[in-house]
Amino acid sequence: MAQKFWTDDVTELLRVRDGFRLSEVDPAATPGTAADKKAGQAELARSAQELRELQEKLFAQSRVGARERVLVVLQAMDAAGKGGIVNHVFAQLEPYGLALAAFKAPSEEERAHDFLWRIEPRVPGPGLIGLFDRSHYEDVLIQRVRGFAPPEEIERRYGAITDFEQRIADDGVRIVKIMLHVSPEEQAARLLDRLGDPEKHWKYNAGDVDERVLWPAYMDAFQLAIERSHAPHAPWFVVPANSKWYARAAVQRIVITELQRLNPSWPAVDFDVAAERARVESTLDLSWPTRSGS
Amino acid sequence: MAQKFWTDDVTELLRVRDGFRLSEVDPAATPGTAADKKAGQAELARSAQELRELQEKLFAQSRVGARERVLVVLQAMDAAGKGGIVNHVFAQLEPYGLALAAFKAPSEEERAHDFLWRIEPRVPGPGLIGLFDRSHYEDVLIQRVRGFAPPEEIERRYGAITDFEQRIADDGVRIVKIMLHVSPEEQAARLLDRLGDPEKHWKYNAGDVDERVLWPAYMDAFQLAIERSHAPHAPWFVVPANSKWYARAAVQRIVITELQRLNPSWPAVDFDVAAERARVESTLDLSWPTRSGS
Repeated sequence: MAQKFWTDDVTELLRVRDGFRLSEVDPAATPGTAADKKAGQAELARSAQELRELQEKLFAQSRVGARERVLVVLQAMDAAGKGGIVNHVFAQLEPYGLALAAFKAPSEEERAHDFLWRIEPRVPGPGLIGLFDRSHYEDVLIQRVRGFAPPEEIERRYGAITDFEQRIADDGVRIVKIMLHVSPEEQAARLLDRLGDPEKHWKYNAGDVDERVLWPAYMDAFQLAIERSHAPHAPWFVVPANSKWYARAAVQRIVITELQRLNPSWPAVDFDVAAERARVESTLDLSWPTRSGS
Repeated sequence: MAQKFWTDDVTELLRVRDGFRLSEVDPAATPGTAADKKAGQAELARSAQELRELQEKLFAQSRVGARERVLVVLQAMDAAGKGGIVNHVFAQLEPYGLALAAFKAPSEEERAHDFLWRIEPRVPGPGLIGLFDRSHYEDVLIQRVRGFAPPEEIERRYGAITDFEQRIADDGVRIVKIMLHVSPEEQAARLLDRLGDPEKHWKYNAGDVDERVLWPAYMDAFQLAIERSHAPHAPWFVVPANSKWYARAAVQRIVITELQRLNPSWPAVDFDVAAERARVESTLDLSWPTRSGS
């Protein structure tokens, strides 16, 4: 790599600040880089090792009591590329260190409880990187747009969400909230692509079009959810996602950066290394009835 | 690749048959290939795409009702390379298609139930590839060697295991049981390696040496468990594992072969593709208040 892929700190460019306007974000842009698809894919592969090493340290230190962990909340319109983020970024993690939770439409039992009832048990444990594929934000997005809950209940939820996120952050959860932002034209192209390829038919959901026609209402709901819930301990990042290669490289870099802030380290152990070595060595001379070494 | 990595059908070479003797398996051998570490690592990378495609089809067809799935049971002595199999073979799968279950020493609640009580809920659902990292076989391995259960209870368990495996196989679970087989000399080398590297200290478990000195009893318990439970619907494969590159490539090939036998296919969908395309196209002209395409 003669040239650096990131020419600027992409995490700062994409981080939501006071006064944020979703309508001013261009889904086709690629902030922080002047590179192309090929370079983006190379960057994604190149940084996998960096991501894994940070994850392994985070996991290792939890074995001796550290409580830090990461929760990535992923929200987007349909066909915006959530699946690709899972399969190309989070698939780079060691399986034991990843806690994946996909939240579908709530079941009857889930609807009978407060909206956070099904969320709380899925908060990742110490040492893990959790990914919420959709989340408690559905309860102020589709539920608002569709009127599944009355306005005063939706209003109550913004406060409940910020209380909830403050509480888990205090317990050692580093929260990273990401909106993948595609344009409606790009969404249409992707839906048509799925319909044009029999190997992708199973990914097509007729219900996606019902939500698609409510696009402006969804954008308003995203705007409101983001401005009501962004905070230093629970930042939002809005990632332009018309270019899949850009969105993947950007999400990878955001996760790496948050892991670096946690600064995990190889843990010191509480056993006597020399004594353990002597114990293992004392068992070397035993004769075993196997053919090993033949 | 000018030369084929596998010169023979490795899955047939490693499959347990009547009359199997664990003591005749050389943990340092590499049956089915004459290649070396470098070629083994290349083979592992090369076949990732084949594995993923089969997995994706298996997952896709389950969305329209197919019940097939795969359960890989992984057993081994400590430091035999289970973690490496997870991180280098199963990490190649799409995260949503993998159901990972690690069975540690049973909790007090688990001990209060039948030994299969904690196993049953972890059997993978349709479309998934499940991995049991340790399993119900611990209940006839460490439990036998350590005398944690009386002989008549251990004896009962062999029958309970074969009944259980027959039942889930009848429900569409393709069972693949794998023993990673290292020599005691190789285990000692790996334990000393962990003790010699501060970045690996956290992986060292002093209890492993307590089990290590019982090696012959463990080999007897493995022999017995394997001969009592291998069956056409629930085969055992004993994989020589002194060479990590060999064990990983062999396990990958075993899983690919079992997936090929299931022969998953892209599912036919029940919606009208042309009508859906027309629905999407009818929404193309709507004007959206975004800056996309700018």
